[in-house]
Amino acid sequence: MFKANQNYSILPESYLFSEVAKRIKEYRDSHPDKEIVRMDIGDVSLPLPQVVVEALCNASREMGESATFHGYGPEQGYLFLREKIAENDYHNRGLLHIDADDIFISDGAKSDLGNLGDLFGPDMRIAVAEPGYPVYVDANVLAGRGGRLADGRWSGFTYLECTPENKFIPVIPDHKVDVIYLCYPNNPTGASMTREELKKWIDYAIENKALIIFDSAYEAYVRDENIVRSVYEVDGAEKVAVEIRSFSKTAGFTGVRCGYTVVPRSLDFTFPDGHRASLNKMWNRRQSTKFNGVGYIIQKAAEALYTPEGRKAIKENIDYYMRNAGLLREALLGKGWEVVGGENSPYVWTAPKLHSSTAALTSWELFRRLLDDLQISSTPGSGFGACGEGWIRLTGFNSYEKTLQAIDRLKTLK
Amino acid sequence: MFKANQNYSILPESYLFSEVAKRIKEYRDSHPDKEIVRMDIGDVSLPLPQVVVEALCNASREMGESATFHGYGPEQGYLFLREKIAENDYHNRGLLHIDADDIFISDGAKSDLGNLGDLFGPDMRIAVAEPGYPVYVDANVLAGRGGRLADGRWSGFTYLECTPENKFIPVIPDHKVDVIYLCYPNNPTGASMTREELKKWIDYAIENKALIIFDSAYEAYVRDENIVRSVYEVDGAEKVAVEIRSFSKTAGFTGVRCGYTVVPRSLDFTFPDGHRASLNKMWNRRQSTKFNGVGYIIQKAAEALYTPEGRKAIKENIDYYMRNAGLLREALLGKGWEVVGGENSPYVWTAPKLHSSTAALTSWELFRRLLDDLQISSTPGSGFGACGEGWIRLTGFNSYEKTLQAIDRLKTLK
Repeated sequence: MFKANQNYSILPESYLFSEVAKRIKEYRDSHPDKEIVRMDIGDVSLPLPQVVVEALCNASREMGESATFHGYGPEQGYLFLREKIAENDYHNRGLLHIDADDIFISDGAKSDLGNLGDLFGPDMRIAVAEPGYPVYVDANVLAGRGGRLADGRWSGFTYLECTPENKFIPVIPDHKVDVIYLCYPNNPTGASMTREELKKWIDYAIENKALIIFDSAYEAYVRDENIVRSVYEVDGAEKVAVEIRSFSKTAGFTGVRCGYTVVPRSLDFTFPDGHRASLNKMWNRRQSTKFNGVGYIIQKAAEALYTPEGRKAIKENIDYYMRNAGLLREALLGKGWEVVGGENSPYVWTAPKLHSSTAALTSWELFRRLLDDLQISSTPGSGFGACGEGWIRLTGFNSYEKTLQAIDRLKTLK
Repeated sequence: MFKANQNYSILPESYLFSEVAKRIKEYRDSHPDKEIVRMDIGDVSLPLPQVVVEALCNASREMGESATFHGYGPEQGYLFLREKIAENDYHNRGLLHIDADDIFISDGAKSDLGNLGDLFGPDMRIAVAEPGYPVYVDANVLAGRGGRLADGRWSGFTYLECTPENKFIPVIPDHKVDVIYLCYPNNPTGASMTREELKKWIDYAIENKALIIFDSAYEAYVRDENIVRSVYEVDGAEKVAVEIRSFSKTAGFTGVRCGYTVVPRSLDFTFPDGHRASLNKMWNRRQSTKFNGVGYIIQKAAEALYTPEGRKAIKENIDYYMRNAGLLREALLGKGWEVVGGENSPYVWTAPKLHSSTAALTSWELFRRLLDDLQISSTPGSGFGACGEGWIRLTGFNSYEKTLQAIDRLKTLK
């Protein structure tokens, strides 16, 4: 008799972003005359750069001719793309120890963040920064590592609180953990991390033989020199850390689906029986068994991002979103709200102070107020974890015009 | 201290198709003057139909304009494609009970076949047809369901032997199993199944509340009316069976990456605690949590396959490969070898009789002989499971000219 994975019954059914989308749709359906400004979702609004469109069309035409057709590609991704990534994203930034063989092309960060859990032994103690991207928690709950849920937290996880008190950089836990999810520049807070701060985590991981899953999907938004873009900027990280990257927010690939994950060959752990485990080989085996690689056309599109035109287009797009985020940040600071992010990140994390309310509002109440009163959609901070309560996430991803419109509306909020 | 998933240490490291590719490469490197005819891999050789190339370019240009740009799409796939599939692949064939909401667009059969195991409870007894696609076994071993490996078989699985004696259609097991993997038209044997034969399995699954994973990636190759193309042709299957489909072999999408999985909303099982489990909702949750959907451009390409030009191109491609498979089948029968497949499938499964050898050769010895003596690559049958020993798989996927060349060479083998 077939029995289903019980963990699917204990995870609350609704996924944060689906729930936000559902509530926005409900509002829209009952207020067809009102125009909502979407400041909630982390999706991009600028179209693909022309150099990418050309690469897509060229590769599509190649696929239509016998002589240049490409069937199954390597599960790890084509070498032409892995070499471009190694050269541009690592070697040219002084990170000479990351090579093409450490890099695996993926269909996006979400897949790899979810599937990396396949490599973990049972009973691994997971530490997640809170607030954080829900996938870190949800994927591990589905894999049976959640324990019991109470007051929005799972007993099986160690929550690394990111609050105004610690400037949204978590402190090292007082007990041992085995896997640590970190994301900088952070989603949702927009906070960023210096190399000194990251070094503490790398040192902890080396000392405790812990694995760090470093999500740097937003690295392209970093402006300051001393802010970490890659986990491998700290010596020793190549022995303890996996890095997840995506072209989604860098180059507008949210609807194209391409990213990459770095699993250095120097990443050695052990199996429960004490034998050596090469995480690079394990991931290679996982991907070879359960994945058939990213399409050729898509990988050619990603390759085009490393041309001079591609680099220029990415920079322009990011400058555009960062102008939005910066304006948003200034406007919220001007209202006297607590604000973080918007400097090295497209996200602005804010705790609104509403003079019209005597009690502090919850994140979902704030979401509702902004939607009802201003027709602005936001993402409730509590959806990213318990200590996000009272905060909301706004993004710089809408158009410049819409962002100005949102700012004008926010100014009227009392 | 991080400890890795021990199951990665017990699965033999080399994956069948990688091993075949490696040995071919070694041969090529040491015999640069010899030209190998690839009859091993299940990859297609014909380029993408022009209607698909046009759809890819059109969608790429849409992505390059603000007004028609598409960011994140639904994790389940766009409705425009799911509706086309429901209408053309199910409704128009009299299967009115499969709807767009039962269909999930994927990046290929391998991903979904691997990831569906996420939904299984612990200790599920898995039955796999043998020989079979290695992913069924390997993905379940990585998930801890393998038990111990001895003589090429895992103690945790029930092997459903497919042999000349049962015409490569397995018999119902004499003990209870919880999940059954079936693939028809079969890879690697090329055998096909009638509705009467399938009905026995559906009846078994209904009676025992078992789940059937039905891999019909090769359904487009079916010629005979009484041969099963979809598991849902048998009444009641919608209560016990998931169906996996792919555009890879149908439309040359091996390098494009798109397929779909049908998880009917009528598929109800229970959790270990006795509560109801909707597999459709569980799969939706899995995909929403660990997958971000297939790219817009790729889904537009798949949609183009349902136009009259798309249908025509697919038919021409399949006729082309089936001519190859048929010629291969006839040639091997002419040699007096045991042969199955090549009639409703692009695969030809054969047990060569070599007069030059007194002892029966193993699959890998046959592989070696064909490579060394004829420069023909094959896939060793034992790689698909123990009872594939002594057999090899040849395919109709090479060009017509190369297939004729392979046939000429095979004729010389003594």
